[in-house]
Amino acid sequence: MKAEIIAVGSELLTPDRLDTNSLFLTEELNSIGIEVVRKTVVGDNRELLAEAFRGALDRVPLIIASGGLGPTEDDLTRETVAELLGRKLRRNDEILRHIEGRFRSLGREMPEVNVRQAMVPEGAEILENKRGTAPGLWLEDAGRVIALLPGPPRELKPLFHEQVLPRLERRASGVRLHHREIRVTGLGESHVEQRILPIYKRYPEVNTTILAAPGETQIHLRLWTEDAPHAKKTLDEIVRSFEIALTDRIFSEDGRSLEEVVAHELTMNNATISAAESCTGGLLAQRLTSIAGSSSYFLGGVVCYSNELKTAWADVPPEMILAKGAVSPEVAVALAEGIRRRVGSTFGVGITGVAGPGGGSEEKPVGTVHVAVSYPGGVKERGIRVPGDREAIRWQASQAALDMVRVHFLYNGQNNTKSSSKRV
Amino acid sequence: MKAEIIAVGSELLTPDRLDTNSLFLTEELNSIGIEVVRKTVVGDNRELLAEAFRGALDRVPLIIASGGLGPTEDDLTRETVAELLGRKLRRNDEILRHIEGRFRSLGREMPEVNVRQAMVPEGAEILENKRGTAPGLWLEDAGRVIALLPGPPRELKPLFHEQVLPRLERRASGVRLHHREIRVTGLGESHVEQRILPIYKRYPEVNTTILAAPGETQIHLRLWTEDAPHAKKTLDEIVRSFEIALTDRIFSEDGRSLEEVVAHELTMNNATISAAESCTGGLLAQRLTSIAGSSSYFLGGVVCYSNELKTAWADVPPEMILAKGAVSPEVAVALAEGIRRRVGSTFGVGITGVAGPGGGSEEKPVGTVHVAVSYPGGVKERGIRVPGDREAIRWQASQAALDMVRVHFLYNGQNNTKSSSKRV
Repeated sequence: MKAEIIAVGSELLTPDRLDTNSLFLTEELNSIGIEVVRKTVVGDNRELLAEAFRGALDRVPLIIASGGLGPTEDDLTRETVAELLGRKLRRNDEILRHIEGRFRSLGREMPEVNVRQAMVPEGAEILENKRGTAPGLWLEDAGRVIALLPGPPRELKPLFHEQVLPRLERRASGVRLHHREIRVTGLGESHVEQRILPIYKRYPEVNTTILAAPGETQIHLRLWTEDAPHAKKTLDEIVRSFEIALTDRIFSEDGRSLEEVVAHELTMNNATISAAESCTGGLLAQRLTSIAGSSSYFLGGVVCYSNELKTAWADVPPEMILAKGAVSPEVAVALAEGIRRRVGSTFGVGITGVAGPGGGSEEKPVGTVHVAVSYPGGVKERGIRVPGDREAIRWQASQAALDMVRVHFLYNGQNNTKSSSKRV
Repeated sequence: MKAEIIAVGSELLTPDRLDTNSLFLTEELNSIGIEVVRKTVVGDNRELLAEAFRGALDRVPLIIASGGLGPTEDDLTRETVAELLGRKLRRNDEILRHIEGRFRSLGREMPEVNVRQAMVPEGAEILENKRGTAPGLWLEDAGRVIALLPGPPRELKPLFHEQVLPRLERRASGVRLHHREIRVTGLGESHVEQRILPIYKRYPEVNTTILAAPGETQIHLRLWTEDAPHAKKTLDEIVRSFEIALTDRIFSEDGRSLEEVVAHELTMNNATISAAESCTGGLLAQRLTSIAGSSSYFLGGVVCYSNELKTAWADVPPEMILAKGAVSPEVAVALAEGIRRRVGSTFGVGITGVAGPGGGSEEKPVGTVHVAVSYPGGVKERGIRVPGDREAIRWQASQAALDMVRVHFLYNGQNNTKSSSKRV
């Protein structure tokens, strides 16, 4: 089946916004064998909106649209599509109660404008939105389907999963997209390409894409087929070859982020962690605690920008800072060991560096970062030189720190950590 | 003038690639008064491609297309557009020599396929591409313009600047886009709408968009006119009315983020800040240090997840945690005051809450957050109830904390802080 995606919103026609929902929607549609043949972005204008929907209705049996379902005057998707299909809008009291309930639970009164969101075209099925006021709508017309979804990704994604996908699955054919995502860190795009090119060239039926992302490289394998066992066998084979070519640089084969992988290892091994950060300014702690249940492994962290606080909070000797400089392997190690001792965690991480744009010198230019991980019975330190701006440097520094913890588990396994966790 | 952007390439219809050229193109077009009314992404398929161009030709006088000018079989833009306009393709020997020269300079022979790139529709002007083999093409037909550009951003951008922009400028009218962005926090989309609707309704010539973003609401005002003084006067007038309607909820009228606004106030007032975070896990510190030069106002922060560390690092009395619970106004205040005293900063921020998904109770459900700001001579505390998932709750909590500091400067101005900064 072929589909088009329409993103509605004048803000998506400005220089500051892209329609990112379409990436998620494409992935989901592909997974059940539906191909996306066109994506359109159109503004909040009744006439242009009608034209976009009319054109798509002429071309494909499935339209997925996002946005324009809000409560305000410029949210026109509902009205426009209803008019195009010759359907009347009617107020749905159940939706109205749901919206009023949402406001009440937040201790607020529902503003009058929100009544618009309870207006439903005749014959439409309502797709309940648990995370927002605007419900989605499912419309069928002369064998074609139009699904109208709210614009905010955090509302659109669960709604699509729970309510649109099952409805589409019932209609989809047997061809499926089989997809693998391999995530690599500490190795640039062209180096990854060089190592895996001889492998994936042997599988012309598989579409291979190599993608650079901040602090990592992603490899996507895609195979469209009805034959699921064949797809599994082929993709498994390729991934096994990649594992040999890329050694320990692969951190995820199931879409998990680096912090998720590290969180999983810490939890499985009953290990705990703490952090003393300088240039990353809390980014490492923030990433480690972004995961549900993080309080079981993350005990605490300090952001010690000033030299005084490096000493006060992580016992870095002032004379060491004086002799070696705040950005040095020695201070990274002292931060890691100091915070681990203070907090009593299995691991302690220390990060110090020059995130820029100021503060660089000839000897220690912007992008110089030292990362140390202290663990029971030892400490490891790594110096890196990161290109890019402040944001890139901070991200890569946190990425390097997480990767050191991951690699520690890879080579030292549970043994080392189990003995250590007794210590805590 | 109105324009549409068409991005050509099947890879732009996969889940991992977005057409980012359109952001650059939109900004450039807007700068000379050309409005982008639709963006389309279409794959490398002759029929679908023809349909996309045909539709756009019916609607607008200007089409900017990127991609599909390469040398391979699936690069179809040239052929499709020529056919659509009823023009023959002719080989251009000058282009051919240019392409052969590029290959020679790399020490290679030109592959036969590249001859395709020297094929030019009758009557087209050639837009020289200094960074690649595929030249751009400029076609005029019945008063309409089609510019075909190469897909790679590093080829497209200079080519657009040097060759397309000057041609468009000659045709563009004096009409320019005048744009204002007002950012609001602590007030939802519909409440903002309700307060400002009576104002912006009075200015039908101005396009007003209200946008929900995490922890904030953005209002975009856009006015297309030749009359710059009139635009300035009108937009100033609207913004002034918004300021009255939204009181202190506006934090930015120039596109700056909340952390940038707070960083600016701290720097201007020679004030410093520190943070003791629980549920935000370092997010506040990370945001405050994401800005260049943050070491001048951010002294340090602690992430104290465990009760022990709340006591060890911010002197929260254990008996207070026992009596009131770790998530309580009292503990937020103690964190703020404790960290400020420890670090010796002008401001101290304390955040404690239930970010979920676990850890909620009937009395303190997921989303309960207490934020406190300690300052010379006082402390303020705010309890909020945030809807959404872990990420949303953490973001909103950090947003509330930054906003309390911003509002403090708003009402206490420099006086209070100046006297306080002496204290540090």
